Amino acid sequence: MKALLTLVLACSSVSAAPRARDLGILLGSHAPGPLDAITDVAGVRVGHVDVVDASTGPHALRTGVTMVVPADGDLWNGKLYAGSFVLNGNGEAAGLMWVVESGILETPVALTNTLSVGAVQEGLVRHMLAAHPKIGAGDDTLTPVVFECDDSSLSDIRALAVRPEHALQALDAAKAGPVREGPAGAGNGMTSYEFKGGIGTASRVLSKEEGGWTVGVLVNANHGARETLRIAGAEVGRELTDLKPALKQDGSIVVLVATDAPLESRQLSRLAKRAMLGVARTGAVAYHGSGDVALAWSTANRLPHYPKAAVLDVKVLSDFHLDPLFEAVAEAAEEAVVNVLLAGKTTVGREGNTVYALPVDRLMGLLKRHKAVKE
Amino acid sequence: MKALLTLVLACSSVSAAPRARDLGILLGSHAPGPLDAITDVAGVRVGHVDVVDASTGPHALRTGVTMVVPADGDLWNGKLYAGSFVLNGNGEAAGLMWVVESGILETPVALTNTLSVGAVQEGLVRHMLAAHPKIGAGDDTLTPVVFECDDSSLSDIRALAVRPEHALQALDAAKAGPVREGPAGAGNGMTSYEFKGGIGTASRVLSKEEGGWTVGVLVNANHGARETLRIAGAEVGRELTDLKPALKQDGSIVVLVATDAPLESRQLSRLAKRAMLGVARTGAVAYHGSGDVALAWSTANRLPHYPKAAVLDVKVLSDFHLDPLFEAVAEAAEEAVVNVLLAGKTTVGREGNTVYALPVDRLMGLLKRHKAVKE
Amino acid sequence: MKALLTLVLACSSVSAAPRARDLGILLGSHAPGPLDAITDVAGVRVGHVDVVDASTGPHALRTGVTMVVPADGDLWNGKLYAGSFVLNGNGEAAGLMWVVESGILETPVALTNTLSVGAVQEGLVRHMLAAHPKIGAGDDTLTPVVFECDDSSLSDIRALAVRPEHALQALDAAKAGPVREGPAGAGNGMTSYEFKGGIGTASRVLSKEEGGWTVGVLVNANHGARETLRIAGAEVGRELTDLKPALKQDGSIVVLVATDAPLESRQLSRLAKRAMLGVARTGAVAYHGSGDVALAWSTANRLPHYPKAAVLDVKVLSDFHLDPLFEAVAEAAEEAVVNVLLAGKTTVGREGNTVYALPVDRLMGLLKRHKAVKE
Amino acid sequence: MKALLTLVLACSSVSAAPRARDLGILLGSHAPGPLDAITDVAGVRVGHVDVVDASTGPHALRTGVTMVVPADGDLWNGKLYAGSFVLNGNGEAAGLMWVVESGILETPVALTNTLSVGAVQEGLVRHMLAAHPKIGAGDDTLTPVVFECDDSSLSDIRALAVRPEHALQALDAAKAGPVREGPAGAGNGMTSYEFKGGIGTASRVLSKEEGGWTVGVLVNANHGARETLRIAGAEVGRELTDLKPALKQDGSIVVLVATDAPLESRQLSRLAKRAMLGVARTGAVAYHGSGDVALAWSTANRLPHYPKAAVLDVKVLSDFHLDPLFEAVAEAAEEAVVNVLLAGKTTVGREGNTVYALPVDRLMGLLKRHKAVKE
Repeated sequence: MKALLTLVLACSSVSAAPRARDLGILLGSHAPGPLDAITDVAGVRVGHVDVVDASTGPHALRTGVTMVVPADGDLWNGKLYAGSFVLNGNGEAAGLMWVVESGILETPVALTNTLSVGAVQEGLVRHMLAAHPKIGAGDDTLTPVVFECDDSSLSDIRALAVRPEHALQALDAAKAGPVREGPAGAGNGMTSYEFKGGIGTASRVLSKEEGGWTVGVLVNANHGARETLRIAGAEVGRELTDLKPALKQDGSIVVLVATDAPLESRQLSRLAKRAMLGVARTGAVAYHGSGDVALAWSTANRLPHYPKAAVLDVKVLSDFHLDPLFEAVAEAAEEAVVNVLLAGKTTVGREGNTVYALPVDRLMGLLKRHKAVKE
Repeated sequence: MKALLTLVLACSSVSAAPRARDLGILLGSHAPGPLDAITDVAGVRVGHVDVVDASTGPHALRTGVTMVVPADGDLWNGKLYAGSFVLNGNGEAAGLMWVVESGILETPVALTNTLSVGAVQEGLVRHMLAAHPKIGAGDDTLTPVVFECDDSSLSDIRALAVRPEHALQALDAAKAGPVREGPAGAGNGMTSYEFKGGIGTASRVLSKEEGGWTVGVLVNANHGARETLRIAGAEVGRELTDLKPALKQDGSIVVLVATDAPLESRQLSRLAKRAMLGVARTGAVAYHGSGDVALAWSTANRLPHYPKAAVLDVKVLSDFHLDPLFEAVAEAAEEAVVNVLLAGKTTVGREGNTVYALPVDRLMGLLKRHKAVKE
Repeated sequence: MKALLTLVLACSSVSAAPRARDLGILLGSHAPGPLDAITDVAGVRVGHVDVVDASTGPHALRTGVTMVVPADGDLWNGKLYAGSFVLNGNGEAAGLMWVVESGILETPVALTNTLSVGAVQEGLVRHMLAAHPKIGAGDDTLTPVVFECDDSSLSDIRALAVRPEHALQALDAAKAGPVREGPAGAGNGMTSYEFKGGIGTASRVLSKEEGGWTVGVLVNANHGARETLRIAGAEVGRELTDLKPALKQDGSIVVLVATDAPLESRQLSRLAKRAMLGVARTGAVAYHGSGDVALAWSTANRLPHYPKAAVLDVKVLSDFHLDPLFEAVAEAAEEAVVNVLLAGKTTVGREGNTVYALPVDRLMGLLKRHKAVKE
Repeated sequence: MKALLTLVLACSSVSAAPRARDLGILLGSHAPGPLDAITDVAGVRVGHVDVVDASTGPHALRTGVTMVVPADGDLWNGKLYAGSFVLNGNGEAAGLMWVVESGILETPVALTNTLSVGAVQEGLVRHMLAAHPKIGAGDDTLTPVVFECDDSSLSDIRALAVRPEHALQALDAAKAGPVREGPAGAGNGMTSYEFKGGIGTASRVLSKEEGGWTVGVLVNANHGARETLRIAGAEVGRELTDLKPALKQDGSIVVLVATDAPLESRQLSRLAKRAMLGVARTGAVAYHGSGDVALAWSTANRLPHYPKAAVLDVKVLSDFHLDPLFEAVAEAAEEAVVNVLLAGKTTVGREGNTVYALPVDRLMGLLKRHKAVKE
């Protein structure tokens, strides 16, 4: 691959853009967590690496890596129950087959662009090998989890500019606390509902009576047709018909769900499905070309690698008590998508293609007219 | 089973209640068919049999059978491509395993209450045996398709009042043209978003440029919590907080999708999934106790039973042209749910439980306030 | 349905035919349980009702119901983790959608003929309603599990001779101890590898080091082409080319797996899959017309119905210790199929069709020649 | 990554080892194709690149890439129907989600070691980008198909010695004709049934009456416990109890199936499943740590990328005529596994671990004793 002059920003400053709740867009009935972010689930950390430059020619770069560390401590020796749901499988989901079979997650979860899955997968492999000298040398091997979205309308995806090192940098950058949204990490080149897309997050905390569990969602939104966009129910996509990008790209939305509720893999797959129902509330119909995948995990049980004692003691929430979690994850996913759009910045990228930020003032005018915000 | 004095009404008069479009509730961007019903797909017929009485004691009956004949002619010798999607599998879906394996539909599709699946299955078996003397006598046997919803809050579901004969009567009653909505057939005992639920339908016809295909949806809606109800996006469930039934029952929504677009089974499963995204727009989160199943079929190709010539010529729409169908089916499913609620009639049933009709005037007031209707 | 003069035999005497191990056919490396039957798993009970007559005309009956009670005690309030695998879905599997979604089994499991699934489903519904007055009257409703095989080559399947009452009788007949094999209950009309098929069972008990768990398998075998039959590996189907029935019917094999190992639903689905690998060792290729379904459950955890305390303490075997169970279930399934064939009795049924018992003497001659038995 | 002194052999000479049929091991009843290889399906090409050295220390290399080009011509603009079956998902299957969703295969299929999936994926990406300048620059992006097995008991898998370039070399090496089996390409580090494993292939051609279709199978076999090994049914694994390797590794078997029969994706998934039934005949129980994946495609229909004419004319074999294909693919898969073992060469690798070739003379003695070969 030819050398690329890329500006790599392991930037961690959190956007100052107002978020949905700041604007009175109050989705659903459950309360958000303190950060209204996936990092409200204790132990979850998020890191972004931007692989971007300022150019707007054929080799413009607006791409990157976002890494979500799903829990604290040693994931290999303290595996997490996990489940998934593929709403539409146009895309890559490295590592997913093993999550489905084993019901566990044992590596960080990476997001990047479609053609860089291999590089980021190799980065995660290197990370795990460095941390675990026995992997592949006595111990089992591994299949890390990498999702992707197409960012080719803003970025020269053919340049394969994301390298394994970027995955390692994103891991290093991963931290608790507020999450940078919008054009951050893998979100840099995203377009959602034909506005600037990218990373968004939100969370919900159930009432004590409902168990007090926290559910956090992080999305990388690159999906949707303008016409179908709904915010807080209002069909604003029909009214915001201008400000569309010249270039098209495949849509996709990756949805990550973390919870501290003691769920096992089957239940987490159900939770992942409900996250997609929240996305559907924003108007998504999961187009043919979209890679719409949700992964959910629980931090409640930690499962050992090849334990001597064969039988594990596990805490599992009764299915009869799942409904509040289903509501919460749908709400959080819907809000995360709205947060993506609110955090967008108008971006000129590859071949001068301009992807506009959702005009927040105009949006708020519409939402007020539709009585869809709390004033 | 003890004798039951039941009033069986094979009533076919179509409700005079206004439907969504009559009220200016215009969902989505594609045009409806002439009937705005699943019967806009040529060959599809719908029949209802009501198994109801006027009582309100422990043995009240508000149940029935709805039969959808998926295409004209001989289904056994002219099978249809079919696909499905299980959003939440709390319920029975007789015949579905075979639809999934074979990718075909070869019997009418029945809807009834949860505990009468066996009786209705037997009714469909009898119907097929009568029409096809070789089935089970030289020819293969069959597994008819029966879906269900729980109607126990209005009806004495324990009475097993629906019998095989009712399935046959519903088949006899099946006809083209407008579809009776609301408390019709299997819809009699339904509750949706804690209002009176039941049968609803809608359709879309694509533009000529998009292929001109028709997609029709019929739902039996028995799902949803009031709090989450959205109509035309507006979160009216938060505002219509009274008029709730005293008794609870499991939710469920069955969604049937017919199209004349030449889709094969994999594509029809994708279509079925998008129908559920339309349902999600009304606020559904697919609760644990819900049986949310969608079945989709195409009338375009007819597949022979054990043909001598092994290779069939089939028309298949390219996946790259599916997106308008995805949009259309989501819109039609959303509208079908709204039509259910508009067709509701306040009903007093088992143990005096009252399920209220959605108050249309109040709803319209809210939708106008939210600028969610065309005035 | 017209009246049928049927001889109903709730016969419980166990066949005196030699079983695989009696004949030195020692499959696999794990030890069988005391009964070498599914009933080696504590609490499992099996009941057969035969619906048969001696006629050989068009209305001959060789059918019935087999009921497997999966554990002792109250299944509704002490649900079992369960999983499944559909090797080929040409058939009915009532109740399976709910098993898959919920990961639990909460009713007895019935086997019958293809066209009687509805009747047997209704029988199981009645049984559950009688035992649980709240079901459908405050409590959730239910979807009992019924599998089927086609017995139309020996029996007038169009007569719908199995009625709900037969399901109840089979439940009454269910007992622990040795299991009647071959033409018993649902097995009466079965044909397997073009020999007389039906019910078979086997079990394995792991060594103490491997956990000491018991795995039991019961099959209803109605599948397979003679040509492909392998017993103890030996391709005896190529050598036993005579004694074929005149009439054909759809094949199918239903495989039920019980274990006392503490597995959850995902793991049990994996176990169910391995049972089918054992069936494959007998030569099965899962023909298009075959309904090849496996259901597995564990008696180790009992899950409450709508518990007040939301979080359950569950014992789960680590996946890293599953392999001996995988081996054991494959061995037991293979042996169960062999036991079916050994228990066959030459039967003349509908239209004089004769299905021959596997000639045991000839088989043993072949197996000795192939050094496939312990002498 | 540090520089590695590796000997890359794009060797294409075909092994002179006798194959199953040469030895009178005649599995199943259908005839093989002229090459008895996946390349009997017109257009299929196979290329191996060995990444091996002679060392036996901690950094020994016995790995590589095997590339299967699934049909002739332009795969991107003449896509193939494809289906898959995951028998056990412990492993990576890059690209599989998209195969499942779209029902098509549009890239070559690569096999490599577990930790090199990312590198090989990148190699395939580069190949596709070079051939298609519009991919990612106006056209959709892509997700190439890469499967893997763990070769860490013979090779320093932690070295990540396979690079993107090796994937390109394997593509260059791909050719029609006989296929090098055993320790070839991705097969170099394989261990199967605790003997030397690797690549194997076989094919079947149906009779003219059955359609005359060809089915070819290629496996990379790295799975199985000795104890369970059956060849031609004979339980030889119980008798060949010596010659076991000192080091363990995760098992896995990747099975690729090509056919010229006009099957669509659902049917191809069914075919893939039957391939695994053939593998099961060799004793496989799909251990927890095994990644057992089958991918099947048909060369009969070629599907355009974004066609202007939305409706395609497709040839599809009636499901009622599938059974001979099911038999054929099971037979070919079984034989391919046997061919793997016969092509094995005793190999000393990482840390001096020795994986022995199956001793052919001893095997033949056993098979003769079991009357399992044609003499």
